[in-house]
Amino acid sequence: MNLPKSVRLVEVGPRDGLQNEKQPISVADKVHLVDELSAAGLRYIEVGSFVSPKWVPQMAGSAEVFAGIQRQPGITYAALTPNLKGFEAALEARVEEVAVFAAASEAFSQKNINCSIAESLQRFVPLMEAAKAASVRVRGYVSCVLGCPYDGEIDPEQVASVARELHAMGCYEVSLGDTIGTGTAGKTRHLIETVARQVPRHLLAGHFHDTYGQALANIYASLLEGISVFDSSVAGLGGCPYAQGATGNVATEDVLYLLQGLGIDTGIDMDKLIAAGQRICEVLGKANGSRVARARLSR
Amino acid sequence: MNLPKSVRLVEVGPRDGLQNEKQPISVADKVHLVDELSAAGLRYIEVGSFVSPKWVPQMAGSAEVFAGIQRQPGITYAALTPNLKGFEAALEARVEEVAVFAAASEAFSQKNINCSIAESLQRFVPLMEAAKAASVRVRGYVSCVLGCPYDGEIDPEQVASVARELHAMGCYEVSLGDTIGTGTAGKTRHLIETVARQVPRHLLAGHFHDTYGQALANIYASLLEGISVFDSSVAGLGGCPYAQGATGNVATEDVLYLLQGLGIDTGIDMDKLIAAGQRICEVLGKANGSRVARARLSR
Repeated sequence: MNLPKSVRLVEVGPRDGLQNEKQPISVADKVHLVDELSAAGLRYIEVGSFVSPKWVPQMAGSAEVFAGIQRQPGITYAALTPNLKGFEAALEARVEEVAVFAAASEAFSQKNINCSIAESLQRFVPLMEAAKAASVRVRGYVSCVLGCPYDGEIDPEQVASVARELHAMGCYEVSLGDTIGTGTAGKTRHLIETVARQVPRHLLAGHFHDTYGQALANIYASLLEGISVFDSSVAGLGGCPYAQGATGNVATEDVLYLLQGLGIDTGIDMDKLIAAGQRICEVLGKANGSRVARARLSR
Repeated sequence: MNLPKSVRLVEVGPRDGLQNEKQPISVADKVHLVDELSAAGLRYIEVGSFVSPKWVPQMAGSAEVFAGIQRQPGITYAALTPNLKGFEAALEARVEEVAVFAAASEAFSQKNINCSIAESLQRFVPLMEAAKAASVRVRGYVSCVLGCPYDGEIDPEQVASVARELHAMGCYEVSLGDTIGTGTAGKTRHLIETVARQVPRHLLAGHFHDTYGQALANIYASLLEGISVFDSSVAGLGGCPYAQGATGNVATEDVLYLLQGLGIDTGIDMDKLIAAGQRICEVLGKANGSRVARARLSR
């Protein structure tokens, strides 16, 4: 067992989480959430998305959120930017780091962003050039790495190919997303072994959904494969757009509990994290999606 | 990775699960549940408990349940029997196999059954003798193996000692129970390594609670340690008596999903299992505790 000594958690609740909650919330509530997550010790927070509010009303006001948060030293405040226009808006909002996304599934790419995988990568070229010129780091997401809602099984070689492209274009890290949560531990290990032949594993991150309850087992399997960066969402914000009422992003609290039990350092304060998650759930009027939070708060 | 080729799931929903649901249900509903679990391919079902209904009203009528079920060849129908009186009642109900339980925590033993661990083991002696005389196999449970609601951390050597005693008394298998769900993957591996020095690991089973979301990661860690028997509860029946509103027993459906993904044979039909779990949840008027069931039923 060669587990990493420390792990960086990428908090995606304010973006990936809130984007998939039906109810849009106010800029003030988003700012409060990000500030509470900063205070809890998260070192990387995806704050918002620079995308047309016509398509994603939940992400309206991301520039105002960036203007409102109390930026702390040592913490990266990032945004998702699907194209050059979004990147320019992000730059104006003093975003320090951005993320782009591609799918490992052709059907998903077509249905989600209306173009092929190759076309979607091509569209990032001007963004990548602008980011390089502005010295802004770009993180890459690959979705559907362990299954697609339309295509079913996905070939790990296909995932490796998309990850390699993103890395070659200049993404300093590639996050492998099990968008529909159908991955299991053995497939996760095999996927990482396959992708790591194209992109060094210290540049890979795991992004697991808990829709089928497998996320923590997959994260443990990833840790055993030497992965030390994981995306998660406080209070499990987000749900699953492909199975209404089901779980989506793995809850940050539950990942932290696993890591603490393994003696792996994250720098995160569990109590403050649980408080931040519970508060945003109260704003949204929904049950807390973290099992750790539910257990702790019910004692 | 030397994972077992096949795994036996011990279905504890009708006993450990229903015992911890507030609302007692009818004998007819229990019979129906057990018959549906049999039809789904479970090979071992803990059907009930022979204990005073004054203490555990949910388990009243266990003899009638045993009389009502359609016993199928190749399936073991077991009962929990805390003492000789319970064992004799079980024998009369034609129970094929029984289980006894002890705690790995002195405080838990005192608060739960009002005696020391040593005294609780001593009380099983006449039961073990009667079981031997009647050629009835006895399974042993150890609770609080990865934490105690009163004592906190539990020394793995203490767990190993209780497991060794149960094995020495004649238990053919010892199930290690993370009663409060606070165990994590690394501690699980260390526990199994420690206990396996006293009881061969092919005679050990894992019994994990999902209160902190860790159960599947712990099961995956146990599989990597060569454990091939796991207790689980359909639809996550049971909840957690130490954290109201929190999750208890890991859901059989979620364990099965992990095992199927790993290519491990169990002989269980997922669709029939999900149907059995959903039906009993409707009888109880509660939300389904299996993430797999929720995801599948919401499609």
